[in-house]
Amino acid sequence: MLPRYEVVEVELKENTYQIVISAELFDSIGAIIVPYLKRKNVAIITDTNVAPLYLDRLKRSLESCSIKYCALLLKPGETSKSWNNLRKTVEWLLENQIERDDLILALGGGVIGDLVGFAASIVRRGVSLIQIPTTLLAQVDSSVGGKTGINSERGKNLIGTFSQPKLVVIDSSILKTLNNREFLAGYSEIVKYALIGDKGFFDWLNKNKGRIRAHEKDFINEAIKKSCMAKARIVALDEKEKGQRALLNLGHTFGHALETATGFSERLLHGEAVSIGCIMAFEISKEMGFCDDLEVKQVVKHFSQMGLKTDIKQIRGALPNTDEFLKLMLNDKKVKNGKLSLVLLNNIGSAFVLENVDLSKVRQFLFKKLN
Amino acid sequence: MLPRYEVVEVELKENTYQIVISAELFDSIGAIIVPYLKRKNVAIITDTNVAPLYLDRLKRSLESCSIKYCALLLKPGETSKSWNNLRKTVEWLLENQIERDDLILALGGGVIGDLVGFAASIVRRGVSLIQIPTTLLAQVDSSVGGKTGINSERGKNLIGTFSQPKLVVIDSSILKTLNNREFLAGYSEIVKYALIGDKGFFDWLNKNKGRIRAHEKDFINEAIKKSCMAKARIVALDEKEKGQRALLNLGHTFGHALETATGFSERLLHGEAVSIGCIMAFEISKEMGFCDDLEVKQVVKHFSQMGLKTDIKQIRGALPNTDEFLKLMLNDKKVKNGKLSLVLLNNIGSAFVLENVDLSKVRQFLFKKLN
Repeated sequence: MLPRYEVVEVELKENTYQIVISAELFDSIGAIIVPYLKRKNVAIITDTNVAPLYLDRLKRSLESCSIKYCALLLKPGETSKSWNNLRKTVEWLLENQIERDDLILALGGGVIGDLVGFAASIVRRGVSLIQIPTTLLAQVDSSVGGKTGINSERGKNLIGTFSQPKLVVIDSSILKTLNNREFLAGYSEIVKYALIGDKGFFDWLNKNKGRIRAHEKDFINEAIKKSCMAKARIVALDEKEKGQRALLNLGHTFGHALETATGFSERLLHGEAVSIGCIMAFEISKEMGFCDDLEVKQVVKHFSQMGLKTDIKQIRGALPNTDEFLKLMLNDKKVKNGKLSLVLLNNIGSAFVLENVDLSKVRQFLFKKLN
Repeated sequence: MLPRYEVVEVELKENTYQIVISAELFDSIGAIIVPYLKRKNVAIITDTNVAPLYLDRLKRSLESCSIKYCALLLKPGETSKSWNNLRKTVEWLLENQIERDDLILALGGGVIGDLVGFAASIVRRGVSLIQIPTTLLAQVDSSVGGKTGINSERGKNLIGTFSQPKLVVIDSSILKTLNNREFLAGYSEIVKYALIGDKGFFDWLNKNKGRIRAHEKDFINEAIKKSCMAKARIVALDEKEKGQRALLNLGHTFGHALETATGFSERLLHGEAVSIGCIMAFEISKEMGFCDDLEVKQVVKHFSQMGLKTDIKQIRGALPNTDEFLKLMLNDKKVKNGKLSLVLLNNIGSAFVLENVDLSKVRQFLFKKLN
């Protein structure tokens, strides 16, 4: 019998799919995916951090449903989102004769999800994919919405496709194996959804921060579900990021620049770059007169109480100067016509896109932050 | 003023686009693409065979409309459809800061069209593309329908996307610079459309073969237009090749195996592999009792009169044995569940897909052909 689980639907015409969420799904993955299989044959791709924890459990679950599998283990870390790994993964799938009607399982965090999602979308011009995210960040963000990709030397995620998975399986109990830093990196994306469009969600998070930090099952599941719903709603309106989806980039234009500057390394996790980036978005909104200082302080306080970074100065080591930083921001793939758009805020729960931002104001703001 | 041209529409919901055809379009490309530009900035990608013939003309045409450009020249030939060139092209586009609203122009034959189409579809998760095919093969086949890709060591076109261009510009006068072998390689795809679904078109081609061989403008344009219409009709019904589109693979399962066996080289052009493959499809259809011998002879005669290859034995050098050949066929990306589908024929103008073909019959057929 399948365990009880919550379902969030991502509505995208012929690409509609479900996200299933529970604290006890993992050992039922075999049974859950059977209806998605045309023949009982899957390829698992994971990394050497995740494999010791979950690969055997996944294999047993598949075996219990007589599903055949092959498995590829990649090195962990953001540097794995590379041309070399893309090629390796695609050629491995071909070597294992994975066909258009087979399924690929991406077992891991955002790096595995993005890389394997990209590989799946280009091998034989598209093989179906199921995401099994194993970090909070991947569960609430990268596994939902169909953005796939690898990094270029010129910036993060500059190469990839829009390609939706057939299903996302979220077992929140596996978050127990995350260290606190990784957990918080994911939590910053949860707060992001609240900041973009749901003040009530922000208040709920604020009220229950103790329970969330203690990983209380029902509260974690609720936070994940609310986040997936928020993202699914926006993705359904704008799958290919022609308008509204840009709101999801709150904190990310600053954040990506910070990640590029720190070499996509352990120095700064993606979620940490997002928390600092969200605060920067609030601060520049304040400087531009869109937002009240009290709002900014409330968000800084919440992030700090949860243990998240809130300022560039909390990053170890040297950072680029103002001009270099601005250049990194202008290299973002959302830049149009050489003009910068930013997601700014009027209040907590009310974000908007400002196009063609006055670069001199951004420069001024960056100068203050960096000096 | 724009020259007179014919228009074929490829109807694909939000991806609908036009193919424009004429014998005097080339110098008007700048004016033709202006309505597709959000800013007057394009990237041209071509190869070192095509560049000396057409790049300066294209540049002048762009300059006359004040369109800025950058240009990348790749080596010609099927081996260019490689991971290395994909990476090179994508990184070059990023280096030149091509943005989502810019346009990429693919100037060349099928290799350039497939490679650049793939690169355009993954750089920044998709930049718009205009195809300017310079071979007959690319004009009637690869530039239409949105299949992009590179080759794997394990087979042709095993890696790629479905991604539609914004426009296809066909100037049939540039076919004058093709040698006869290249011209014929394209012509075999034209006959393929007739064989699949249009006996009347086959009769028209047969009647006018002299004029077509003499490159008479109106007859070439008509043959190109009819071919594009045939392909557009099938692609509109089945963009992602879930059913009907498979008919376009007439001759291609045999043909791809032949190309793989000959190393995608000058030994055998794609169109030559297709002409031999089409005859093999007719022959096996006859052996399986689907088709009359007279039909096969008629097609062999037409191909021979046009100067096209019709038999494996016309290929220089060693070929694989029966088992190796069958293995190459089973590696095709259309193979499902380890079972082979083939496009077979009842008559000229009436093709169908036979799923789950009896492999022992294929083996028997191949043994006879190869020995």
